[in-house]
Amino acid sequence: MKVVTFGEIMLRLNPSGFFQLFQRGELEASFAGSEANVAVSIANYGADATFVTKVPDNALGDAVIRELRGYGVDTSQVAKGGKRLGIYFVERGYSHRPSKVIYDRENSAIAESSLDDYNWDQVFSDADWFHFSGITPALSKNLAEICEFACRAAKSKGLIVSCDLNYRAKLWSRSEAAKTMSKLMEYVDYLIGNEADASDVFGVSLRDSDVTSGELSKEGYKIMAKELTDRFGFVGVAFSLRGSISATINDWSGMLYVDEQAHFAPKYRIHIVDRIGAGDSFAGALIYALASSYAPQRAVCFAVAASCLKHSIEHDFNRVGLLDIERLMEGDKSGRVQR
Amino acid sequence: MKVVTFGEIMLRLNPSGFFQLFQRGELEASFAGSEANVAVSIANYGADATFVTKVPDNALGDAVIRELRGYGVDTSQVAKGGKRLGIYFVERGYSHRPSKVIYDRENSAIAESSLDDYNWDQVFSDADWFHFSGITPALSKNLAEICEFACRAAKSKGLIVSCDLNYRAKLWSRSEAAKTMSKLMEYVDYLIGNEADASDVFGVSLRDSDVTSGELSKEGYKIMAKELTDRFGFVGVAFSLRGSISATINDWSGMLYVDEQAHFAPKYRIHIVDRIGAGDSFAGALIYALASSYAPQRAVCFAVAASCLKHSIEHDFNRVGLLDIERLMEGDKSGRVQR
Amino acid sequence: MKVVTFGEIMLRLNPSGFFQLFQRGELEASFAGSEANVAVSIANYGADATFVTKVPDNALGDAVIRELRGYGVDTSQVAKGGKRLGIYFVERGYSHRPSKVIYDRENSAIAESSLDDYNWDQVFSDADWFHFSGITPALSKNLAEICEFACRAAKSKGLIVSCDLNYRAKLWSRSEAAKTMSKLMEYVDYLIGNEADASDVFGVSLRDSDVTSGELSKEGYKIMAKELTDRFGFVGVAFSLRGSISATINDWSGMLYVDEQAHFAPKYRIHIVDRIGAGDSFAGALIYALASSYAPQRAVCFAVAASCLKHSIEHDFNRVGLLDIERLMEGDKSGRVQR
Amino acid sequence: MKVVTFGEIMLRLNPSGFFQLFQRGELEASFAGSEANVAVSIANYGADATFVTKVPDNALGDAVIRELRGYGVDTSQVAKGGKRLGIYFVERGYSHRPSKVIYDRENSAIAESSLDDYNWDQVFSDADWFHFSGITPALSKNLAEICEFACRAAKSKGLIVSCDLNYRAKLWSRSEAAKTMSKLMEYVDYLIGNEADASDVFGVSLRDSDVTSGELSKEGYKIMAKELTDRFGFVGVAFSLRGSISATINDWSGMLYVDEQAHFAPKYRIHIVDRIGAGDSFAGALIYALASSYAPQRAVCFAVAASCLKHSIEHDFNRVGLLDIERLMEGDKSGRVQR
Amino acid sequence: MKVVTFGEIMLRLNPSGFFQLFQRGELEASFAGSEANVAVSIANYGADATFVTKVPDNALGDAVIRELRGYGVDTSQVAKGGKRLGIYFVERGYSHRPSKVIYDRENSAIAESSLDDYNWDQVFSDADWFHFSGITPALSKNLAEICEFACRAAKSKGLIVSCDLNYRAKLWSRSEAAKTMSKLMEYVDYLIGNEADASDVFGVSLRDSDVTSGELSKEGYKIMAKELTDRFGFVGVAFSLRGSISATINDWSGMLYVDEQAHFAPKYRIHIVDRIGAGDSFAGALIYALASSYAPQRAVCFAVAASCLKHSIEHDFNRVGLLDIERLMEGDKSGRVQR
Amino acid sequence: MKVVTFGEIMLRLNPSGFFQLFQRGELEASFAGSEANVAVSIANYGADATFVTKVPDNALGDAVIRELRGYGVDTSQVAKGGKRLGIYFVERGYSHRPSKVIYDRENSAIAESSLDDYNWDQVFSDADWFHFSGITPALSKNLAEICEFACRAAKSKGLIVSCDLNYRAKLWSRSEAAKTMSKLMEYVDYLIGNEADASDVFGVSLRDSDVTSGELSKEGYKIMAKELTDRFGFVGVAFSLRGSISATINDWSGMLYVDEQAHFAPKYRIHIVDRIGAGDSFAGALIYALASSYAPQRAVCFAVAASCLKHSIEHDFNRVGLLDIERLMEGDKSGRVQR
Repeated sequence: MKVVTFGEIMLRLNPSGFFQLFQRGELEASFAGSEANVAVSIANYGADATFVTKVPDNALGDAVIRELRGYGVDTSQVAKGGKRLGIYFVERGYSHRPSKVIYDRENSAIAESSLDDYNWDQVFSDADWFHFSGITPALSKNLAEICEFACRAAKSKGLIVSCDLNYRAKLWSRSEAAKTMSKLMEYVDYLIGNEADASDVFGVSLRDSDVTSGELSKEGYKIMAKELTDRFGFVGVAFSLRGSISATINDWSGMLYVDEQAHFAPKYRIHIVDRIGAGDSFAGALIYALASSYAPQRAVCFAVAASCLKHSIEHDFNRVGLLDIERLMEGDKSGRVQR
Repeated sequence: MKVVTFGEIMLRLNPSGFFQLFQRGELEASFAGSEANVAVSIANYGADATFVTKVPDNALGDAVIRELRGYGVDTSQVAKGGKRLGIYFVERGYSHRPSKVIYDRENSAIAESSLDDYNWDQVFSDADWFHFSGITPALSKNLAEICEFACRAAKSKGLIVSCDLNYRAKLWSRSEAAKTMSKLMEYVDYLIGNEADASDVFGVSLRDSDVTSGELSKEGYKIMAKELTDRFGFVGVAFSLRGSISATINDWSGMLYVDEQAHFAPKYRIHIVDRIGAGDSFAGALIYALASSYAPQRAVCFAVAASCLKHSIEHDFNRVGLLDIERLMEGDKSGRVQR
Repeated sequence: MKVVTFGEIMLRLNPSGFFQLFQRGELEASFAGSEANVAVSIANYGADATFVTKVPDNALGDAVIRELRGYGVDTSQVAKGGKRLGIYFVERGYSHRPSKVIYDRENSAIAESSLDDYNWDQVFSDADWFHFSGITPALSKNLAEICEFACRAAKSKGLIVSCDLNYRAKLWSRSEAAKTMSKLMEYVDYLIGNEADASDVFGVSLRDSDVTSGELSKEGYKIMAKELTDRFGFVGVAFSLRGSISATINDWSGMLYVDEQAHFAPKYRIHIVDRIGAGDSFAGALIYALASSYAPQRAVCFAVAASCLKHSIEHDFNRVGLLDIERLMEGDKSGRVQR
Repeated sequence: MKVVTFGEIMLRLNPSGFFQLFQRGELEASFAGSEANVAVSIANYGADATFVTKVPDNALGDAVIRELRGYGVDTSQVAKGGKRLGIYFVERGYSHRPSKVIYDRENSAIAESSLDDYNWDQVFSDADWFHFSGITPALSKNLAEICEFACRAAKSKGLIVSCDLNYRAKLWSRSEAAKTMSKLMEYVDYLIGNEADASDVFGVSLRDSDVTSGELSKEGYKIMAKELTDRFGFVGVAFSLRGSISATINDWSGMLYVDEQAHFAPKYRIHIVDRIGAGDSFAGALIYALASSYAPQRAVCFAVAASCLKHSIEHDFNRVGLLDIERLMEGDKSGRVQR
Repeated sequence: MKVVTFGEIMLRLNPSGFFQLFQRGELEASFAGSEANVAVSIANYGADATFVTKVPDNALGDAVIRELRGYGVDTSQVAKGGKRLGIYFVERGYSHRPSKVIYDRENSAIAESSLDDYNWDQVFSDADWFHFSGITPALSKNLAEICEFACRAAKSKGLIVSCDLNYRAKLWSRSEAAKTMSKLMEYVDYLIGNEADASDVFGVSLRDSDVTSGELSKEGYKIMAKELTDRFGFVGVAFSLRGSISATINDWSGMLYVDEQAHFAPKYRIHIVDRIGAGDSFAGALIYALASSYAPQRAVCFAVAASCLKHSIEHDFNRVGLLDIERLMEGDKSGRVQR
Repeated sequence: MKVVTFGEIMLRLNPSGFFQLFQRGELEASFAGSEANVAVSIANYGADATFVTKVPDNALGDAVIRELRGYGVDTSQVAKGGKRLGIYFVERGYSHRPSKVIYDRENSAIAESSLDDYNWDQVFSDADWFHFSGITPALSKNLAEICEFACRAAKSKGLIVSCDLNYRAKLWSRSEAAKTMSKLMEYVDYLIGNEADASDVFGVSLRDSDVTSGELSKEGYKIMAKELTDRFGFVGVAFSLRGSISATINDWSGMLYVDEQAHFAPKYRIHIVDRIGAGDSFAGALIYALASSYAPQRAVCFAVAASCLKHSIEHDFNRVGLLDIERLMEGDKSGRVQR
């Protein structure tokens, strides 16, 4: 199985532990981005993952390659050039203090890249699945077009296409997103997201649910998925379901709607180390599961367990392996020491 | 609005995370002290804050100035000289292990300072509010006298005066505290503290309350505040209310008694990063709120929300801004990531 | 009172906080091992503790001596020589992600040591108690024999002998353990362990209990202890009782069965910093309590409170002192700051 | 004395010690920029320094203010807004491995700022000296114009104007620099730089000198300064003189040409901790010395001693105080411990 | 060009900076080994490098793969299994204090590996060069045989074979080394080493040289190389030449003897960050140069410049790129900042 | 052999590497003091060392005991009580920037201790040597008297007494020092110091020497030692001889004058990691050598080699062992890696 993902990877900078930004003189430096996170998840589970992006031809671009390659992601299709690598700053919240993210991603190499930077024919040779998120087309007009081009190429080669909505209000307005994303949905087989993204981008709203209370309405999610499926003809729709008790404790679950059936995973009450990248870890695990032909119920349980564990991992990448996920799926939440 | 605070600032040394003192070879170094913490809070909210103290004329004194000035606190009235900067060591507790504080503050520059070190006339020009805590007069006989002198000067210039009881058994006995503090209460408009301090210093005791169980009696606090108001003629009395479940989890609330009315803030169940300085953050936010003419209910809610957030911040200073506090006051405890 | 413990001490390597192994470029280095942990606990409480082991004659062996000696453990009986110091890697879990331990302890100096390396006559002069765990005889045939020799020498000198079962499936099979341990039980006065170890080694199983649910059956533990006492003629049997909610939250208690009576300590719900070494801290505190002639009920309460606190301490050694334990035994779980 | 400087301040990120970029997972974060460095030097010596810039209205901009304010620099004239703070990455060299700097400064708040962002009238009230470097006009067309506007305003208010050439080939071509800088020289009283900058920007070349060999020709520098003075009518020209033996060892001196006299400071052979910002520390100290009416010989000796010491300081800012500089000027290079 | 190297890779642990082992509670963790270091150098220069080894199937083995793969080394031929990864501890010297290395490498996965673990046919397909060092056959009898098997396979496929003598007295005696290595020399085209290794293993001794004085006799090295070439029929012999002034300052050069001509590189006086791995960086660069058909003089200059720079890099791997080496070869030792 | 030393031990705080004080938010914490440093050196060489002091009965005092005990120093004679542990701050210099030490040692437990705190009879039982430095009597009047009492007790028991002058201008004036120290010299057999101390305390001045130039006059030191010997009747006088090139490079040697003969050690040119404690390491090694009956020439060579190596060790304690010193004495300055 070979999955291709396309998007931006950035330098992520955060103070250690629960310090605030610039409270101490050091920052932890890692690399992350929605589609890169998905690629790392998939490579981590043992499948082939190719990440397509453009990075500057300097020590930052080199470090991106080194990092991804270390995780086993194929970086042979990464274009080099352009001005800069996008950067984002993370200040992790705790208890009643929310996490904060500051983006400094304008004018990045990928945002200013052109169709010529990528050889989609080569990229998709032998590939089975193409994944991107709503962030990629939001980065620039160029990228929206390249996304569409890539989607078309993928479909023409018989790949399955998935998209994580990932609506970012700082990148574009709801109406811009709606317009561009609706067009791209034509190529998409599996839609992944959460209810807020679906509401922001496609105007579908959740009935009978109170997110801030942590109470989730199974029926509401199912209806939402059905609406989207009816509108865009998806093969499946998957939602990660988060109940935010505080910055420290969250409930976490997910739904996969396929063949007019909604499959819900168990709900986990999570103590959080770092929740940035959790949605991507849900997408990555789900794609792996679906591409591995897991039954829908098992697929969503796998995706939720994988992303549940992500919350306990520092930084964006979900470094968790298959065995850990399977043990959790089998119901062992005890956290007993493995010797 | 301009607030003046007067007290000691010390070098705070603590091992990182939840290591014990001297378990590792490094200590985190910051600067803190009850009244300095209050000044930083107020400057942080955008008001003018002047901190009056005395620090030694060496690299430690210079670092104090640099730190406070960075937060926007006016340090032009800081005296320089004397022998040393007080120091305290903090070992943060976790779960059933309590936090521990070791003070090494004797013979500090401020404790041995004299009336000549301060120009109260200049200090109070254009000022609206004067704040000190019970620690300042406890440090030395000199300081008790200087405190009284400063209070008198403040009142004569029409400033509002507030005092945080902050009883420290290692600095003086209850009877010494009672005697000195009672005299100073003559000048105080707003008394701030918690029930243990009020009991230790003024012998008032809380009825119908079991602190260790975390159960708090609203009526008891009101009676206590009334008693104190009757005795000393305060404009208002504010208590922070803590229910200690463990070193990791606390309940936190507060009351402001003014015009014979007790206003209670909502109670927050907090996961704790660092609770040292939380009381000061309550005082600082309350003074800001009162000096900004917030209604009593809003003032105490602001103070409790601000100090609730302080528990999630490393070290003494409450680095939290107005927006974060207001969002929490509006009920958003979800800790959702702000992008 | 003088307690002798005999076993392996290893270099422990773990990433800081909740990072995964080799996620960052640094590892925290400490030294630990079941019987060394027990010796440190006992020295910490002010009693004499002698630790017998063999370490290589290089910078690692020197550091072991320096570390133990610092805690006041008598290292005069430590043999020097052999090839290497055992090593183990710890990755601390969080929430649903379990802690993991990787051992690299084969061919260690102690595992390859011989009877000639130790002078038991000298070791036991003036000693009152001898303690070892099931790890020591599991390390090599030599060590099983040396253990028996030491037990015999201890009994002949009138020492009390205790053993913590500590079954390690990676070191030997259940049947090997059963055979060797059963023989050693002949010399043992106090058996310490948990129900899983007892079940693995002696085939006794707990009735009416569901460990993963955290529900513990008092009666079941008592029956188990009685069975073991009947079989091996122990003076007492002690179990630590753990209910694993997650890698972050555990319930913790313990039972001491002596004179046909089962004494249970209160149960603590613990937030965990580092649980490795908790069982050893239970054993160390229990031995101290019994050797100090605490009544059974007080002894088990002391051991459970001490080991409850260990969960809040970084690394294996329980650095907690008598005062902290006693305060917790008296019921103060509030974690209030001690100034 | 009050000095105003105008320019960009950036987030500086470097790995600790002599690690290469992204070799470890942490970066040291500080803030720096040529003119900010100059302002910090001057504030450090006890004079008034106002730094004019524009920073984004987020946690990065706030941290810039906090840092500069801490050093006593007046930040009341800093504009807030725009997209981003410029960033640069430093990899410190050692021995034969050169230091490397990667800039990521395009589209910074200041580069995209407009004349309206600054109130030069207010900025220059009570000021005595205006300083900028060649980096500021190189950042954007806007800034070149704002620089000229500021120069004109400064001169009209009777301020002395100084400029550090600081040619950056990545920001503009030599011919662009020559054109813009020549125009700005009209307002400049003191030109500061090194021979390479003068050669790059104004095409003057050093005769009889071999920089790579570390041999410096005093006569050549004097001629160069005379040429520049004749062309632009400067009051004075100052060069820092560096002989690069390796990334670890440098020779360092300087010349001040004024009234047709060249004054040379002694040459120091330096072991280097961090040389980034050394040129700015030379400029800052020289401006302080000249504005304090030091005689030319003493002024250049002060500037060279100050910047010699900068090489031993981590990060850009020269944190060295007057006493240390004076002791070095008096000839004490012994580095004996000061107790 | 594709180079295959075969040998052990270990976990390297060292305290940061110039602390002694276990003086602080942290160790820097990296991975290194002579032939792995060579592979990383070659991959770093842009050529294909395959590293063959065996690592345990646990988190340590995974981290080895991740690290090497990050640097672009092909790890597809790494066998997984066995008991453990070898470990070594480094304490870096400074001034008169020498660096110290403690090995803990017995019973490693590779040392206990068998011929079946490697598929040399597959390994050498499309390969041009095979490299190993004297450490590999010294690790175990198995490995000596596997080495010979691999050499034979390499020669039969027409590969060039190189060997770095790397005599380790702790692994085998001189006579054992002489016997085994002499046999392996039959397959070796290029011998790499230093004079001490050649003397230890082959009993050839340097005339007219006093290593401790740092004075090196060019003629002596040439005679030594000729002797070895005459005895074993090498195509070439290369020596790295080190003059040890202290642990902080070394002279460094090298010689390549080929076609009866001795080519010497310039000598560099180096300030040292970390010299472990320098010899491997010499070998790696030399192999790259020779495989790239550099003329002998250029090849040795490249190898010496590359390894000169390695001394300024933390840990074993030479992370330096082609551009840096070429600039140094062109004579720029100035260490000027590259912006 | 058993050596007793008596003096203050303090908490030492310094920023890592070459950062300035409070430039970063962490400080390295260790424990040190002249006589404690001497005791650690002696214990390190394998002899018995007892350190007598008084430390507060809190976590700082406990950590002192743990640290010293770890190094094998007998701490059974350490008194507990008093107010505080002295503290000192170190900022390490580099190149032309001098190291700086800020003391905060007033009112320490030892400074305020009384004769009753020490049992000299017990302290000196079985002891051979008593050592103190000029710091101890300078700390307080009490301590000057206790020192004299201890000296008398030591002499009456037949111990050899040594004193390191260690003049500290911040603790007392030259005339106070002269008066007190002259009286104590009556009991002293070996005087240790440097020429500056001898000049400050006893008014003897070095002829024919220019310390700042690094040129040392052997004859001058001999005359100085003879003068002191004639005046006080010493058995021997030892000087450490330092030539301060810069804060980074020093020359280091020493002289032992005994039986009217001056024995000089070779001079080492040292690159410095941390020179604080170097004088103590000279004294410690000299005492060990003399108490071990080394011939004078060997003794001073041993002391100089030991203290040469100390300059390469972080923090005060000289952690270097006998083997390293002997290798250096034998002339190996090459710093070659020891594997």
